[in-house]
Amino acid sequence: MVVDDVDDGEARLRAWERRTGGALTVLGVLFLTAYAVPILSPGLPHTWHVAAEAAEIVTWTALGADFAVRFRLAARRRRFLRTHLFDLIVLALPVLRPLRALRLVAIVLVMHRRAVSATRLRLSTYVGGTALLLVFVASLAVLDAERRSPDANIRSYFDAVWWTMTTLSTVGYGDRYPTTAEGRVMAMVLMVCGVGLLGFITGSLASWFIDRFSDLEQKETETRDDVADLLTEVRKLRTELGTVRAELADLRSVAPPG
Amino acid sequence: MVVDDVDDGEARLRAWERRTGGALTVLGVLFLTAYAVPILSPGLPHTWHVAAEAAEIVTWTALGADFAVRFRLAARRRRFLRTHLFDLIVLALPVLRPLRALRLVAIVLVMHRRAVSATRLRLSTYVGGTALLLVFVASLAVLDAERRSPDANIRSYFDAVWWTMTTLSTVGYGDRYPTTAEGRVMAMVLMVCGVGLLGFITGSLASWFIDRFSDLEQKETETRDDVADLLTEVRKLRTELGTVRAELADLRSVAPPG
Amino acid sequence: MVVDDVDDGEARLRAWERRTGGALTVLGVLFLTAYAVPILSPGLPHTWHVAAEAAEIVTWTALGADFAVRFRLAARRRRFLRTHLFDLIVLALPVLRPLRALRLVAIVLVMHRRAVSATRLRLSTYVGGTALLLVFVASLAVLDAERRSPDANIRSYFDAVWWTMTTLSTVGYGDRYPTTAEGRVMAMVLMVCGVGLLGFITGSLASWFIDRFSDLEQKETETRDDVADLLTEVRKLRTELGTVRAELADLRSVAPPG
Amino acid sequence: MVVDDVDDGEARLRAWERRTGGALTVLGVLFLTAYAVPILSPGLPHTWHVAAEAAEIVTWTALGADFAVRFRLAARRRRFLRTHLFDLIVLALPVLRPLRALRLVAIVLVMHRRAVSATRLRLSTYVGGTALLLVFVASLAVLDAERRSPDANIRSYFDAVWWTMTTLSTVGYGDRYPTTAEGRVMAMVLMVCGVGLLGFITGSLASWFIDRFSDLEQKETETRDDVADLLTEVRKLRTELGTVRAELADLRSVAPPG
Repeated sequence: MVVDDVDDGEARLRAWERRTGGALTVLGVLFLTAYAVPILSPGLPHTWHVAAEAAEIVTWTALGADFAVRFRLAARRRRFLRTHLFDLIVLALPVLRPLRALRLVAIVLVMHRRAVSATRLRLSTYVGGTALLLVFVASLAVLDAERRSPDANIRSYFDAVWWTMTTLSTVGYGDRYPTTAEGRVMAMVLMVCGVGLLGFITGSLASWFIDRFSDLEQKETETRDDVADLLTEVRKLRTELGTVRAELADLRSVAPPG
Repeated sequence: MVVDDVDDGEARLRAWERRTGGALTVLGVLFLTAYAVPILSPGLPHTWHVAAEAAEIVTWTALGADFAVRFRLAARRRRFLRTHLFDLIVLALPVLRPLRALRLVAIVLVMHRRAVSATRLRLSTYVGGTALLLVFVASLAVLDAERRSPDANIRSYFDAVWWTMTTLSTVGYGDRYPTTAEGRVMAMVLMVCGVGLLGFITGSLASWFIDRFSDLEQKETETRDDVADLLTEVRKLRTELGTVRAELADLRSVAPPG
Repeated sequence: MVVDDVDDGEARLRAWERRTGGALTVLGVLFLTAYAVPILSPGLPHTWHVAAEAAEIVTWTALGADFAVRFRLAARRRRFLRTHLFDLIVLALPVLRPLRALRLVAIVLVMHRRAVSATRLRLSTYVGGTALLLVFVASLAVLDAERRSPDANIRSYFDAVWWTMTTLSTVGYGDRYPTTAEGRVMAMVLMVCGVGLLGFITGSLASWFIDRFSDLEQKETETRDDVADLLTEVRKLRTELGTVRAELADLRSVAPPG
Repeated sequence: MVVDDVDDGEARLRAWERRTGGALTVLGVLFLTAYAVPILSPGLPHTWHVAAEAAEIVTWTALGADFAVRFRLAARRRRFLRTHLFDLIVLALPVLRPLRALRLVAIVLVMHRRAVSATRLRLSTYVGGTALLLVFVASLAVLDAERRSPDANIRSYFDAVWWTMTTLSTVGYGDRYPTTAEGRVMAMVLMVCGVGLLGFITGSLASWFIDRFSDLEQKETETRDDVADLLTEVRKLRTELGTVRAELADLRSVAPPG
C-alpha cells in the first residue's frame, strides 16, 4: 500500500516534470531576455526597465511555485529536499540583489536536471551548454555591477565577455577585472565554476584516455579470454563424463543378475 | 605479551584522541578568534591585543602538549613519528613569526586527522572545509602582513579574500598582490595549496568519471558473469559425477562375489 | 548489393584520402608560408602581398573542393556530415575575416584526421605537433590583428609568441594582451585550446600513472594467475577422467557375456 | 654468443653507472655552486667569476665524457641513442648561452635517471626534488638574464623566486615578469615545465583516488573471490573423481576372470 502510494507519488512527480519542462524553457528564455535587455541597452525608456523587472519577478515566482508543487508531489519529501538542496539554495539566494544573476543558474539547473541522462556525451553537452550560458550570464552580471562604478575598467559587454573568458580559463591577464564588491562576488563564483569546469574537462579526458589506451583494458580482455577457454574445457569435460556414464549403464545391462 | 602491550598502547592512544577531540575543536575556534579579531579590527584597545596573544600562546602550548601525550601513548613510537611528521613540522614551524598562520593549519590537521574516514564524500567535505578555512586564514595572514607596509595594495579584509581567491584559482589578475616578504611567503604556500586543491578536484572528478562511464566497469561485470556461468557448469558436473558414483556402487552390489 | 555499394563508397573515399594526403601537406605548408610571410615582414613590395593573398585563396578553394569530393564519395552522406561537422565549421568560419587564421587549423585537421592512429604515442605526437603549430599560427594571427591598432602592446613576433605561451599555459601575466576585437577573439579561441591542451596532458599523464602504478594492474594480474591455476586444475581433471574411462573399457572387455 | 656480448655490454654499462653515480652527484653540487655564486653575489672579485666559469666548463665536459663512455659501453647503441635522446639534447643545447641553465637540468636528469625506481613514492620524491631544484635554478637563470637590462622588474633573488612560483603555479600576477629575450625563453621553458608539473600532480592524485575509491577495486576483489570459489569447487570435483576411480579398481579386483 505504502509502496503503491510512494510509486504513485514518484509517477505524479515525473508526469508534472514532463508536462512543465517546455514551459520552463520558455520561462528561462523570457527571463534571460528580461535580464539581458536592460543591461545591454541601458538607454531604453523607463517603461522597458519596469517591464523587464516585472518579467523577472514573474518568472521567479513561477520557479518558486514549480518547486513548491514538486515538493508537494514528492512521495519521500525529506529525500526530495535533501536531493534538491542545491536547487533550493539557488532559488533562495538571489533575494540578495548582488546574486540576482544566480536566478538564471537556477532556471538552467531546473531545466537540465530533467534533461540530462547518464551517457557521457549527454553530460558533456550539458556542461558545454551550461558553460556557454555561464559566460553569457556572468558577463551580463559583471557588466551590470561594474558599469555603475566610476573607476571600473569593464565598460562594454565585449569587455565583460573578454574578462569572463580570461577568468574561466584561469588565464587572468588583469587588463580587465571587477572593482566593485558586487562584481568581485560574481567573479569569485565564476572562479569556482572555472576550476570546476577545468576539472570536469580534464577528468573526462582522463577517463576517455583510460578507456582508450589503458593496459587494464587489454588485461581485462585477456582475462576474459582465459575464462572463455576454461568454460570450453569444462564443457568438454562434461561430454566426456557423459560417455563414461553411458558405458557404465551399458556395462550394467550386460552384468549378470547374479 | 609484546603484542598485548602494543595493542594496549594503540587502544590508549585511540581513547585519548576520542576524549580530547571535542576540546581540540574548542581550542581551534578559540585560537581562530584570537588570531582573527586583532587583524580584523586593529583599533581595539591594547589589552585586547595582549589577551589575543595570550590565547594564541595557550592554545599553541595545548597543541604541543597533546602531541607529546600522543607520542608517549603511542606503542610504536618510531612509526608514530614517521606517520605524524607533517603534524610535527606544522607544529614546529610557526615559531618563525611569518608562519604564525600555519598554527591554524596545525589545528585543522590534528582535528581532521581524527575525523576523516575513507569514504569519498567524507574526504570531499574534509577538503572543502579545509579550503574554506584556508581562504579565511590566508586572507587574515596576508592582510596582517601587508597592512604594515606603506606601498601595499591589499588594504581591507575583502581585498585579502579577493586576492586569496584569485590565487587559489590560479587566475591571478595581479590587481592585488603581496609586496612584503612575509606576504609573499604566505602567497607561495597558498599557490602550492591551490595547485594541490585543483589537482584534488580534478582527480576526484576523474575517478568519479571513470566509475560512472568507464568501459572497464562493464568489462568487469561481463567477466564476472562468465565466471558465474563457469561456476554453475562445474556444479552441474559434480552432480553428474555423483550419479556416476551411485551407479558404480549399485553395480558393485549386483556384482557376483566370485 | 547495397552493402557492396556502401563498401565500395568507403573504399573509394579511403583511396581518395590516401592519394590526396601528400598534396594536402604541400598545400598546408604553402598556405602557412603565404599566411606568415606578409605578417612577419610587412615591408615587402605590394606584389608579394597580392601573391600571398592569391595563394591563400587557392589553398582555401582546394580545401573546399577536397571536402566536396569526399562528401560526394562518402557512402553514408548524412553520417559523413555528422562526423565531419567540425571540419565543415572550420572550413566555413574563416569567411569572417577575423577568423582567417582558422583556415590553417582546418588544414591541420584535415591532414591529421587522416594521419592519426589510435596508439597513445601517435596521439601525443599529434597533439604536440598541433600545439607547436598553434603557438606559431596564433602568434601570427594576434600580431596581424594587433599591429594595426595604435595602443597595442604586442608589436613584434617575439612579443606575440611570448603572449601565446603565457595564454596557453594559463599563466597570463598581463604584460602583453590583445586590445583589438579581432585579437581578443583569437585569444578566446586560444584559451579554449589551452584549457583543452592542459586537460589532454593531465589526462594522458593520469592514465599513464594508472597504467604504471594502479593497484588494479596488480589485482588484474593476480586474477589472471588464479584463472591460469584453475585451467591447469581442470586439465588434470580431464586426464584423470580419461584413465577412469580406460579402466571402464578394460573392465567391460573382461566382463562375462552372461 | 651475441646474446652474451649484449648482456656483457649491459652489465658493463650498469657497473659504470653504479660506479660514477656518486661522482656525478658531487659534480652536480659543484656545478650548482659555480653557477649560483656569481649570480647571487655579483660583487665578487673577477678571479672568482673566472673560477666559476672554469668549474662550469669542467663539469660540463665531464658530463659529455660520461655520456660518451656510456654510449661506447652500450650493447645496443642505436637503442641507447633513442632512449637517451632527451639527455643528448639537454647536453647539446646549453652551447647556446641563453640556455646555460639547462646544464643543470642535464645533471639532474643524468643523476635521477639512475636513482629513480618504479614505485609511486619514489617517483613523487623525484618529481618533488626536481621541482624544488627547478625553482632554485630557474630563479637564478632569470635573475642572471634580467639583471643586465635597465627596465627589468626582477632585481633581487627573492623577486626571481617569487616570479618563478607565480609562473610554475600558473597564477601569473604580472607584478614581476621577464623583459629580456633570454629571460622570456627561460620563462617559456618554465611554463611548459609548470604545465607538466600540474599535470603530474593531478595525474598522480587521480590515480591515487581511483586506487582508493574506485568501484573497480571492489569489483576486482569480488571477481577474485568468485574465481577462488571456483577453484575449491574443481578441487572437490577431483577428490570425488579419485574415489570413483578407487571404486572402479576395487570392482575389477572382484570381477570374475571369465
